[in-house]
Amino acid sequence: MNEVVVLTPERILEVTEDVLRRYGLAKATVVDVARALDVSHGSVYRHFPSKASLREAVAKRWLDRASAPLLEIAEATGPAPERLERWLRTMFAIKHKRLGDDPEMFATYLTLAREACKVVKGHKDCLVDQIAQMLSDGVKQGVFEVADPKVSARAIFDATSRFHHPAHADEWNDPDTQARIDALLTLLLRGLEAPCKG
Amino acid sequence: MNEVVVLTPERILEVTEDVLRRYGLAKATVVDVARALDVSHGSVYRHFPSKASLREAVAKRWLDRASAPLLEIAEATGPAPERLERWLRTMFAIKHKRLGDDPEMFATYLTLAREACKVVKGHKDCLVDQIAQMLSDGVKQGVFEVADPKVSARAIFDATSRFHHPAHADEWNDPDTQARIDALLTLLLRGLEAPCKG
Repeated sequence: MNEVVVLTPERILEVTEDVLRRYGLAKATVVDVARALDVSHGSVYRHFPSKASLREAVAKRWLDRASAPLLEIAEATGPAPERLERWLRTMFAIKHKRLGDDPEMFATYLTLAREACKVVKGHKDCLVDQIAQMLSDGVKQGVFEVADPKVSARAIFDATSRFHHPAHADEWNDPDTQARIDALLTLLLRGLEAPCKG
Repeated sequence: MNEVVVLTPERILEVTEDVLRRYGLAKATVVDVARALDVSHGSVYRHFPSKASLREAVAKRWLDRASAPLLEIAEATGPAPERLERWLRTMFAIKHKRLGDDPEMFATYLTLAREACKVVKGHKDCLVDQIAQMLSDGVKQGVFEVADPKVSARAIFDATSRFHHPAHADEWNDPDTQARIDALLTLLLRGLEAPCKG
């Protein structure tokens, strides 16, 4: 007897990821996904009207999974400088771990993300917003001096590209990466500090 | 009557660049270079014992041409913060101009540089040394507070990757690039400032 599983978009995306892992990006088809779900491909198309929209949704899910733990840090209470530093280190760690754990799937997701410009832009904007929120908190706490949190947040995001932008993935395993992250974060946090406290 | 031109490594490299421009990287051969110079290919090999060493030398020349005007700024006198800012803006401008002026040759040189890891490493180390020199000057002038100029120089270099690392070349034409450079440099210069002057 078959267990009845309701076909949700979430379930389709889960199975699509399995299928991508098994067949690879070049070979995986919507029919493979439908077969793995034991449904007709029409049922898949009801949720994702095209292969492109399915691929885009997979990319979005992958990116959302990276930003969820970051949102927690951004929305926590506590001193903004510590939170910002933890947020940045967590972001680097998530990205580096993804690459280290499964370089092949990293490449697959990356290709999907590159096809989905708007999804990536949304992801980046969301991360920059999270940084901006911590900067605003820091200004309220009197520890940061920032004229425009959104502009400075973008600058922080840009300044850390080497450690989170996938174009630099082949450099993340350099033996001095941690030391370089430390030096960069020290510099950036000093650049945000409200001058002459007390 | 043929003009007699002494066959120097410099002359060979110049002509090799022309040949690369004309035939493209995939098709250009050492024989093409020799023919363009009106010499035997043995004469070319006397200066560059292999095709690889010739390609490496072309990459090095390309990179050296980018760092020469920067060295002038690094070694000038005057307030270190202004010099550092000018140095960084000049570095970005040189790289962006190269891409804008001739995207095809940019791609060619980039491929050559990627083959020549040691040459690229030497180029980066040289740029970081130039930054470190300006940081040391700033410390002497009492305007920067930097524990280890070499470490902070590397941090500055990393922090600006998005605007000089060729992996980001496709982002350099974003309409907000200049505003983002401004925001980043403001942040970095503040991070270097000696606290509580006067």
